[in-house]
Amino acid sequence: MKSDVPKVPMLFLKPPSSYIKEGMAIVIPDECDELHHEVELGIVIGTTLKKVDNDEQAMEGVAGYALCLDMTARNIQSEAKKKGHPWSVAKGYDTFLPVSDFIEKDQIADPHNIDLWCSVDDEIKQSGNTSDMIFNIPTLIRYISGIMTLEAGDLICSGTPEGVGPVVNGQVIKCGLGDVMEMTFKVGEE
Amino acid sequence: MKSDVPKVPMLFLKPPSSYIKEGMAIVIPDECDELHHEVELGIVIGTTLKKVDNDEQAMEGVAGYALCLDMTARNIQSEAKKKGHPWSVAKGYDTFLPVSDFIEKDQIADPHNIDLWCSVDDEIKQSGNTSDMIFNIPTLIRYISGIMTLEAGDLICSGTPEGVGPVVNGQVIKCGLGDVMEMTFKVGEE
Ligand SMILES: [Mg+2]
Ligand SMILES: [Mg+2]
Ligand SMILES: [Mg+2]
Repeated sequence: MKSDVPKVPMLFLKPPSSYIKEGMAIVIPDECDELHHEVELGIVIGTTLKKVDNDEQAMEGVAGYALCLDMTARNIQSEAKKKGHPWSVAKGYDTFLPVSDFIEKDQIADPHNIDLWCSVDDEIKQSGNTSDMIFNIPTLIRYISGIMTLEAGDLICSGTPEGVGPVVNGQVIKCGLGDVMEMTFKVGEE
Repeated sequence: MKSDVPKVPMLFLKPPSSYIKEGMAIVIPDECDELHHEVELGIVIGTTLKKVDNDEQAMEGVAGYALCLDMTARNIQSEAKKKGHPWSVAKGYDTFLPVSDFIEKDQIADPHNIDLWCSVDDEIKQSGNTSDMIFNIPTLIRYISGIMTLEAGDLICSGTPEGVGPVVNGQVIKCGLGDVMEMTFKVGEE
């Protein structure tokens, strides 16, 4: 990622229909031949935030956290990038946003210094720390709330450590956030 | 548009925070120096629709319609297209989705043959008919519901006639759908 550090966050939307909870499977669409895992810290918004212009107000607007998988149809995203098309299809299929249970704010001492990992069939693929995030949480909230008003319950996925890669039907993705949260999702129709 | 007819619909998402109703103003973001009006027929979904594979089922899933303005920060969208970035910012600012009151399904005899127009300061800029839509309503619903499950209350904007163009602060956008609906929005802070 170091070769191409963006100046502003790369903002896209996932539809509510992409959310799944543990116990549900990640389904690979027929037209996706390269489904990638991206483990991310999710930031859950607690109040209406519009054009926030200081870091304290941004952090006060955080209700808590969640562990998320920003599943991405990489082949479709690559094609969209090439053509200058939206990313909504590549990022927005049903089941493309596995989310953990809600994490209370005080369960994470420092959200900018917590380990984040992801394994596929028990082989570690991503292992990082939120201290490596290109944009910290208040920066993300200030940027986004300057474009679109955030509301209680909105979820911001904050970016993923290196090591994103493909999964196929039958594989199991596990991921974790420090010693606070762990979750497991099967890939493929139940 | 004829020079570049897409093979599949160009799908992107607008956030709920972009919706406004008559009486509210369209606000031009500081970083937008070219805000365009795109008048569109909105399709309001009435039930859960997942992987719909026939036209009748698609049309039965329609609850009604709305008149919409798909406001677009054209300079930001052009930059995003060039860089292969998402369109979510260009399309998703607060106030970028002016929507009319709900139109009952039976108020429109044929949604594929109704006039659609848009004026700026009473000068007609767009004037078309839904019969010119590249993708008809069941095609849109089949395509989208194959990617993301649609839910009651979801709104699909269906594409705009030629004549999209810029608006500036102080101007007034009017638009209409046959003799069924008309709406007016002011551009600029109230
Ligand atoms: Mg997009
Ligand atoms: Mg990501
Ligand atoms: Mg449009």
